[in-house]
Amino acid sequence: MHVPEPNYSLYVITDSRLAAGRSIRDIVAGAIQGGATCIQVREKEMSTRDLYHLSLQLRALTREKQVPLIINDRLDIALAVGADGIHLGQEDLPAAVARRLIPPEMILGVSAENVRQALEAQAAGANYLGVGAVYATSTKPDAGEPMGLAALAEICRRVELPVVGIGGIHAGNAGEVIAAGARGVAVVSCVVAAERVAGAARAVAGKVQEALFSDRGRP
Amino acid sequence: MHVPEPNYSLYVITDSRLAAGRSIRDIVAGAIQGGATCIQVREKEMSTRDLYHLSLQLRALTREKQVPLIINDRLDIALAVGADGIHLGQEDLPAAVARRLIPPEMILGVSAENVRQALEAQAAGANYLGVGAVYATSTKPDAGEPMGLAALAEICRRVELPVVGIGGIHAGNAGEVIAAGARGVAVVSCVVAAERVAGAARAVAGKVQEALFSDRGRP
Repeated sequence: MHVPEPNYSLYVITDSRLAAGRSIRDIVAGAIQGGATCIQVREKEMSTRDLYHLSLQLRALTREKQVPLIINDRLDIALAVGADGIHLGQEDLPAAVARRLIPPEMILGVSAENVRQALEAQAAGANYLGVGAVYATSTKPDAGEPMGLAALAEICRRVELPVVGIGGIHAGNAGEVIAAGARGVAVVSCVVAAERVAGAARAVAGKVQEALFSDRGRP
Repeated sequence: MHVPEPNYSLYVITDSRLAAGRSIRDIVAGAIQGGATCIQVREKEMSTRDLYHLSLQLRALTREKQVPLIINDRLDIALAVGADGIHLGQEDLPAAVARRLIPPEMILGVSAENVRQALEAQAAGANYLGVGAVYATSTKPDAGEPMGLAALAEICRRVELPVVGIGGIHAGNAGEVIAAGARGVAVVSCVVAAERVAGAARAVAGKVQEALFSDRGRP
């Protein structure tokens, strides 16, 4: 089945711990207004019921805005709300198991922090990779040592899948992540925790577009 | 589709926090040896990957022993390991949503603590109800005030589904739970935390069988 490939250029991930009293829905709406091209729901400390209701709400919003909605870890929630995709870390369901449980058109994203994991995910049927942590990050305390741009670039060269860089990315370094070969950047705190969410998203989106554009000019 | 109804008489629920260094597999094997007729995997603090591997292991064991395996909360894990059923609390996916995501032959159990929840679950397509907390319990700190036998009996009268009593049940009170109308008892600590798991299960199973047998003699 042919499914148009999502635009991963500004991939925004939720984290209600950073919401500072604002609703996740409003934050996501602001992120989309500022140029987010993909939304991932990642909430590790919510009951299944609450996660289901939040995801339903974001499903309605992202459908209206025509932005893909991806659910972290919870394949059950993704099926329940009709999400466009799921994203699995190395501590979640194995990618190959998930691939046979989801509809063929559902996007499967997998986190990889080295070439071996990236190639395994590709072989298991992933549609894209989240690769990081590129830089140090406070959002995901278990993310391990930052890999840096050279390791990111190596993974981008070794796989055929689109790669989204993740971990400590903001407007100030997003350009070099794209220059290293990533198709987009995944951000949490620099957008979700920003006072002006749309403006923060716009700042990152601008840098990504600039880098993607200049990248196209290369040999 | 006709699916033979499971025997819910001694329904044992895992909790690795009570395992005291023993493997969950060994505990479940002991419980089955002692007469457990149904096993539920309930592990709220495990990564999805660990829960998947544990559930796979228990799937192999329960298949060999011909005892149904039910997964708490995680419909994704239930689908991934081919469990016989899922069990949903009031903070998990809504039962009606789960019902349309699982195969028709998969057992759907729902927790209910009052008549309204019990009737809702029945209408949503549940196959059995877990009703409690009958007595005070330390295993599930959020279980609320114990409902007592009269409230349990009321629910058993009002629904057509088999009811499994849960919460603070042990060999000393299992008989009265059955006498109140429950088809079985669900236990955690009195079996899982026991030094001799099989013996502890056997003690409860004996009381349940006794009560079910004497119940049959009633008008």
